[in-house]
Amino acid sequence: MAVSNKFFTNDDLGLGTSEGPGRGVNKDGSVNVRRRGLARVRPYEFYHHLITMGNVPFLVLLVLGFLATNILFAAIYVGIGMESFTRPGGPGFLDRVLDAFFFSAQTLTTVGYGQISPKGHLASTVAAMESLLGLLSFALATGLFYGRFSRPQAQIRFSQQAVVAPYRDITGFMFRFINRRTNQLIEVEAAVSMAFHDPVTNNRRFVSLTLERSKINLFPTNWTVVHPIDESSPLRGMTAEDLKKARAEFIILIKAFDDTFSQTIYQRTSYTAEEVAFGARFQPMSCFGAEGRMEVDMDLLDAMEKAG
Amino acid sequence: MAVSNKFFTNDDLGLGTSEGPGRGVNKDGSVNVRRRGLARVRPYEFYHHLITMGNVPFLVLLVLGFLATNILFAAIYVGIGMESFTRPGGPGFLDRVLDAFFFSAQTLTTVGYGQISPKGHLASTVAAMESLLGLLSFALATGLFYGRFSRPQAQIRFSQQAVVAPYRDITGFMFRFINRRTNQLIEVEAAVSMAFHDPVTNNRRFVSLTLERSKINLFPTNWTVVHPIDESSPLRGMTAEDLKKARAEFIILIKAFDDTFSQTIYQRTSYTAEEVAFGARFQPMSCFGAEGRMEVDMDLLDAMEKAG
Amino acid sequence: MAVSNKFFTNDDLGLGTSEGPGRGVNKDGSVNVRRRGLARVRPYEFYHHLITMGNVPFLVLLVLGFLATNILFAAIYVGIGMESFTRPGGPGFLDRVLDAFFFSAQTLTTVGYGQISPKGHLASTVAAMESLLGLLSFALATGLFYGRFSRPQAQIRFSQQAVVAPYRDITGFMFRFINRRTNQLIEVEAAVSMAFHDPVTNNRRFVSLTLERSKINLFPTNWTVVHPIDESSPLRGMTAEDLKKARAEFIILIKAFDDTFSQTIYQRTSYTAEEVAFGARFQPMSCFGAEGRMEVDMDLLDAMEKAG
Amino acid sequence: MAVSNKFFTNDDLGLGTSEGPGRGVNKDGSVNVRRRGLARVRPYEFYHHLITMGNVPFLVLLVLGFLATNILFAAIYVGIGMESFTRPGGPGFLDRVLDAFFFSAQTLTTVGYGQISPKGHLASTVAAMESLLGLLSFALATGLFYGRFSRPQAQIRFSQQAVVAPYRDITGFMFRFINRRTNQLIEVEAAVSMAFHDPVTNNRRFVSLTLERSKINLFPTNWTVVHPIDESSPLRGMTAEDLKKARAEFIILIKAFDDTFSQTIYQRTSYTAEEVAFGARFQPMSCFGAEGRMEVDMDLLDAMEKAG
Repeated sequence: MAVSNKFFTNDDLGLGTSEGPGRGVNKDGSVNVRRRGLARVRPYEFYHHLITMGNVPFLVLLVLGFLATNILFAAIYVGIGMESFTRPGGPGFLDRVLDAFFFSAQTLTTVGYGQISPKGHLASTVAAMESLLGLLSFALATGLFYGRFSRPQAQIRFSQQAVVAPYRDITGFMFRFINRRTNQLIEVEAAVSMAFHDPVTNNRRFVSLTLERSKINLFPTNWTVVHPIDESSPLRGMTAEDLKKARAEFIILIKAFDDTFSQTIYQRTSYTAEEVAFGARFQPMSCFGAEGRMEVDMDLLDAMEKAG
Repeated sequence: MAVSNKFFTNDDLGLGTSEGPGRGVNKDGSVNVRRRGLARVRPYEFYHHLITMGNVPFLVLLVLGFLATNILFAAIYVGIGMESFTRPGGPGFLDRVLDAFFFSAQTLTTVGYGQISPKGHLASTVAAMESLLGLLSFALATGLFYGRFSRPQAQIRFSQQAVVAPYRDITGFMFRFINRRTNQLIEVEAAVSMAFHDPVTNNRRFVSLTLERSKINLFPTNWTVVHPIDESSPLRGMTAEDLKKARAEFIILIKAFDDTFSQTIYQRTSYTAEEVAFGARFQPMSCFGAEGRMEVDMDLLDAMEKAG
Repeated sequence: MAVSNKFFTNDDLGLGTSEGPGRGVNKDGSVNVRRRGLARVRPYEFYHHLITMGNVPFLVLLVLGFLATNILFAAIYVGIGMESFTRPGGPGFLDRVLDAFFFSAQTLTTVGYGQISPKGHLASTVAAMESLLGLLSFALATGLFYGRFSRPQAQIRFSQQAVVAPYRDITGFMFRFINRRTNQLIEVEAAVSMAFHDPVTNNRRFVSLTLERSKINLFPTNWTVVHPIDESSPLRGMTAEDLKKARAEFIILIKAFDDTFSQTIYQRTSYTAEEVAFGARFQPMSCFGAEGRMEVDMDLLDAMEKAG
Repeated sequence: MAVSNKFFTNDDLGLGTSEGPGRGVNKDGSVNVRRRGLARVRPYEFYHHLITMGNVPFLVLLVLGFLATNILFAAIYVGIGMESFTRPGGPGFLDRVLDAFFFSAQTLTTVGYGQISPKGHLASTVAAMESLLGLLSFALATGLFYGRFSRPQAQIRFSQQAVVAPYRDITGFMFRFINRRTNQLIEVEAAVSMAFHDPVTNNRRFVSLTLERSKINLFPTNWTVVHPIDESSPLRGMTAEDLKKARAEFIILIKAFDDTFSQTIYQRTSYTAEEVAFGARFQPMSCFGAEGRMEVDMDLLDAMEKAG
């Protein structure tokens, strides 16, 4: 109940009550909405994109940016004339272009060997601006690297399916999740909300589901979140078919604190009616090893067995 | 009511009860107050300014600082005498000045080609200090770039006008807002307070307005905040003229959590009585697109139609 | 009352009940305790010191570190023999030492002009390590600059004295404070606790004082915190002499949120009985300027006038 | 009670009710669990490791990485042929290899003296990529240094043993802790939970212990946390033998706010039944020094004396 006050002051989560054919929240936690119009705020969107893109595209972008900048400056230096530089370069055009390119690279990275160096005033001026640009670019790159690493990185993996399985004397709606990273998550909170089609109002309605427990202090292994299907549960008496007919969607919100980086982390996912298995239950993931230490086998996250 | 406890433990928000002719909170959320006296804490104000100024002024400042530093050091090198350097330079004064300038730039950026390099002890000492200064400056610039990008950047855009429009069986005071950025804002809270002239005490008074909902969990589209004008509302029975006569000002406080950067974000705005449209309502901004996905047209934020 | 629940779950604040002659909390907010024994955790203490020391000592330390490192490496290069370098240098010992020093500076800053460069293998190896050290040092310096600027920097200035002045029909214990910086502080909370000698138990006791308001949302000007001395107040009926006899100390805790940097900020101070003026009140600090904007004169923070 | 609501919404802390022979929480606060399976998320695990490893291994890793990179590039340059470089180098193979190595180091650090510099196109291209790699590596190193220093670093040291000692008219379960760092921790909260074997269900059960005080505002010295063993305490009437028989484990959670870095800090530890001393009490750690200032002797943290 505590979480329901915390997460759900209103029933619809901000997703709206009008109803489309698709799911409200995607498996990866993104919201199933497309935004049109209104030019975005450019610089911050660009930063946001550089921070959240994959590692390989990011590095490719850095190298391409380095090449493009050098090609641009090489063209400027060739335009100025390579006779403004101390090393005359070979006789051919290509030799001069390559010399200009290498000089540019040596300037942008500030390595500045000096075997080619600017003599003329214009070339010297352009080179000074290029070395300033180089330093500022790498100042930016430093900030980007740090921004990429330090941003919150929850790596919670949810079970592919939820189950409706025996729980004490009744049944319960259950799913489970693990922390894929080795850092400690603490004060982990879960909240579960069910969206469904209400035939009376012909609208999408939302109801929060009471959990057997909504918060744990330490999260070393896995957590099976349980909504007991007792008399007060909206799932009471519903079959797999009923859920599908109601186009039920279970929306999961997880909140945790990452001890290592002092950051609050959120993760979302959802289960559609099709992703809820009736008559199955999760196999245990943990046991006691030889040394008397609890061992968790992360690979068993999705392991289920027939039940009830 | 929940938010009123959170945001408003007191009615006057910290704005004071004495009354001037102007608005209390400006459209951009700044408070309409001028501070005089008391020399400010220089270094942090300067940092604060560098972090919050626009991108173009910031880059112009960097380039100007680079030029000014080089001009300063060039003057010192010319003063020491260019015969202390390996490249004697041209015969004219301007040639020597430009050589000094380029040497300075090559030292400050640590590119150090070496076609000009210090021979004399004094020139070498000054060059050593300049290269140290260069490195520290770029260490500073790195911190500034990161500070600029990582600081909280709410880009909430509010509707230009608020409306008093039909709401269920009664009317409601409404405004709406969108997130201009593509990042997810979650746990978004709103609080609305009305400031007005109290003819009895001749003071400015503040009252918080109850909201239909004061918090949403996900904020993918737009949120129309509604204060129902029911029997307990201080707006009950008031006309547009009444609001203007009372010099009413609606002060809006928004609080949200930015999932991408793990930061709490605040934004403020206000609507004066003149900015409240009676007998109008907001047009819907979202519909279901071809693929069954909800689509939001951000450009419709201010779209209104006649109502009631 | 709200704050007392938040700040004071216990009455003694963690300061202990045994009693010394001095004040518990110093004017600058530090706690009046000296710690002995237990070797501190070196690296983090060092970092902590580098982050919190003044700007001038920090820059002096950087320059001294630069000089010391260059002197050390110059000694190594002279020991290796300057004949391992391309520029033989002057005949005298001092010339060789200076060449070694300048070469070291050019290596540490990675400016590397090349007019002096290592020939021998040993000299080249030492130079390679020195340039690595240089880069890592400046990586560290970058982190330190950012750490210094980004750490929370509340610049709250409290009035030098508190007053017991007329408040509505009764009197109140009051002090006020301003934000010396131009950034916005929001959701500012205050809590006041009084420490005094209890003649019965002969111990130091703590009691929290109820405030007229304990939180404001916006803090554009100044805030006069008021504890009304009503029937429930422990100050009821006490004179200036009584406070001194009881060795009363008013401990102030301020908590605020810095909007610009998304940081929670705390500041503390205390007023001893000697720092409480009876029969005086604060002069107003704010008025309406020519343009109808509220103006605050920060220099009036300590301005008082006779009262009551 | 307050903390028990905050920390313990459920009794088992997330440790599970199945029971092994070992302790649940280790002395250093880590949880006694081993995780198997599920390939970890590589890049973030690597970053996590680089941020949390010791200072000496981190520096060794940096130097080894520098050497390995230079050896790799030296091999490439030798493969290309040292005749592509301006300094032909000595006649022997080793001379050429060393020249290649030193050139690589001068390129990677961007010191670029220029006494060796690339002539050929291929050598120039590889050198350009190496200097780019160098800059990016040091951008990364900068981020790592800052990440290492800025992450939360609680240095709370707990007393080696807990005691059951006289407390007012009854006894109490007590332990104490200090802050080893000189930074201020504020709003320090403690929560204590006892795990024990329940012979009825043959499971491990958890119960939270009520504390005399669960939060202090300032933490300048030491804090002795006390659970009074009154009539409502589950420890009422239990002897040292009883605790051992029940395989009792006291799990301690500490939460604090680090004022200097605006970070919330958590620390954990546990005491097994064997680590609880009956009939002993802690010696005082603080006294008033010559100048009337409270002095704390950190070395007395574990000092105990016979009691009761």
